Amino acid sequence: MVIRLGPGYEFDLIRRFLEDMPPLPDAVRVGPGDDAAVLRDGTVVSVDMSVENVHFRRAWLEPEDIGYRAAAAALSDLAAMAAEPLVVLAATAFAPQDVPDFADRVVHGLRQAVEAAGAVLVGGDVTSSPGPVVLDVTVLGRAERPVLRSGVQPGDELWVTGELGGAAAAVVALTTGAVPPPGAAQAFRRPVPRIAEARWLAGHVALHALIDLSDGLSGDAGHLAAASGVSITIRSADVPVHPDLAASGDERRRIKGSLAGGEDYELCLAAAPGAVEAVHDAFVERFGLALTRVGAAQAGEGVTILDAQGEVMKFGTFGSAVLPGQGQEDDLGGFDHFRKSGDAG
Amino acid sequence: MVIRLGPGYEFDLIRRFLEDMPPLPDAVRVGPGDDAAVLRDGTVVSVDMSVENVHFRRAWLEPEDIGYRAAAAALSDLAAMAAEPLVVLAATAFAPQDVPDFADRVVHGLRQAVEAAGAVLVGGDVTSSPGPVVLDVTVLGRAERPVLRSGVQPGDELWVTGELGGAAAAVVALTTGAVPPPGAAQAFRRPVPRIAEARWLAGHVALHALIDLSDGLSGDAGHLAAASGVSITIRSADVPVHPDLAASGDERRRIKGSLAGGEDYELCLAAAPGAVEAVHDAFVERFGLALTRVGAAQAGEGVTILDAQGEVMKFGTFGSAVLPGQGQEDDLGGFDHFRKSGDAG
Repeated sequence: MVIRLGPGYEFDLIRRFLEDMPPLPDAVRVGPGDDAAVLRDGTVVSVDMSVENVHFRRAWLEPEDIGYRAAAAALSDLAAMAAEPLVVLAATAFAPQDVPDFADRVVHGLRQAVEAAGAVLVGGDVTSSPGPVVLDVTVLGRAERPVLRSGVQPGDELWVTGELGGAAAAVVALTTGAVPPPGAAQAFRRPVPRIAEARWLAGHVALHALIDLSDGLSGDAGHLAAASGVSITIRSADVPVHPDLAASGDERRRIKGSLAGGEDYELCLAAAPGAVEAVHDAFVERFGLALTRVGAAQAGEGVTILDAQGEVMKFGTFGSAVLPGQGQEDDLGGFDHFRKSGDAG
Repeated sequence: MVIRLGPGYEFDLIRRFLEDMPPLPDAVRVGPGDDAAVLRDGTVVSVDMSVENVHFRRAWLEPEDIGYRAAAAALSDLAAMAAEPLVVLAATAFAPQDVPDFADRVVHGLRQAVEAAGAVLVGGDVTSSPGPVVLDVTVLGRAERPVLRSGVQPGDELWVTGELGGAAAAVVALTTGAVPPPGAAQAFRRPVPRIAEARWLAGHVALHALIDLSDGLSGDAGHLAAASGVSITIRSADVPVHPDLAASGDERRRIKGSLAGGEDYELCLAAAPGAVEAVHDAFVERFGLALTRVGAAQAGEGVTILDAQGEVMKFGTFGSAVLPGQGQEDDLGGFDHFRKSGDAG
């Protein structure tokens, strides 16, 4: 089995972990390498782990927000398959001094996100941690017609929902000790898994591919390109930038935050030319959310970012941007979980 | 919704986390409080988190064993529902210095356990950890007729598979710097989720209830008693003790290890008098595994342990025995994740 993910040391590691995998049994329709696994009967399942001081900092978030974000990140993987959420399991590791009060508040926020998505918490695990708080959220849903990463065709258009870089704008503010603008703070603290939006789009457009933007547009487009065996070009000037990021006035930060700022949890979709345009106005009216064409697919491989003049922009490897200051500064990523010096290129 | 688990601070915490839960939707047949959640269509799902220096010590296990045990613990929850494993997802947090070599070996062991159970790894998450290694394993299976914790009837017999305390015997040896006897080492390093055994038993006996022994017999019998609204009496002299624990010659250690030593992952089942006896020989012949009557259920609540003379033995609260030296020494537990001083009673 070949695991077709985009570039990055984290994804190299996943490829290593899955070397020499046995063939998938008939009961499994989609195995590793997409946003979620899918069984033949339409069951969709995914898991997302959040680790303190990797995915979140306690000083930057209320405990409820920490739980909310952990669940929203996992639920977003169901959105990325156009699946309907059913049940959630939450495994938690808290330090003894965090129970019961801090832990209670984290789990309360987690349950808010689960219930907001129409799902229910049906189990989990509770353990102590000698170190960071760890939240691992398993989500299970159903999709009659799951939309995979692997269906992008040369000639397809690439679209995104919403505005990108809100979470990145909040992180920039928090890093410098500033108070994030309310819109950016909301995007960072209470991301919305685009479940209803994904299901509506899948019902109204012949979507070729779908992914959620957890690693940042450039990185996630890399996953689409790798899974589909195509090249993707993104026009940076067309990328809808969150107003609080745009307002920062820093061109480099604007480009980096909107292209590589992870954790916006908006959707990126591919469809034949004109297909999304035909439902654009109805979507915007229904959801009050932008829907913007940002690029296209061609024969080839990898992701190319064009600047406003149509020139190819040069960047290093793309990773998921989670916390600043841990990645390398000279690339479009911000954070690769296992970046080694010399890997960026 | 009332969460009916046995006593212990860890379980009090779970009860707190699940306060004011909305009613379960029709699509969910079994919610929190059993070994796994069950959907109406027979999908069974559970999650189990293993944290370094809580559930395992690197000095005591090969990396492959760490992964194997983490997966076996999760798969054992499917055995406890008499479910057939289908797919597994593994979320991992490793420190940068642990990748790729140590991490590779852990995941290799995890995959061995998954494949030995007839399941397949279909996804997961890979993140870095600033602290301990964390493995969170999600298991998904199917059960036509899941066997719950809540069906014990007054008058039922309580039976266990295998011999108890093997893992505890290994931990005792490792704690004192000794080399564990081979049988105990195998039980500790490569526990066998009793999946085939559970499914055979469920097919041949009208099981009233089933649980796997992850917290130790006394603690897990407490979960059965709480879930079923009955009292359970265990005759300690009837409990089958792993030969390497019996050979240690220490009476207190023998009793504690076999009654409260967690992580044996044997099964504990309840059925009407005579029902298990009728298939006993066929079971032992088929699986080469002991099947032993250890107690009975009556009207009432809680767990009572009788000594060889039929006298009630006095213990403190029961917790899961994982690593020694972290629990309180004057009770039958060994480890409660969040034991507070003064909680033992």
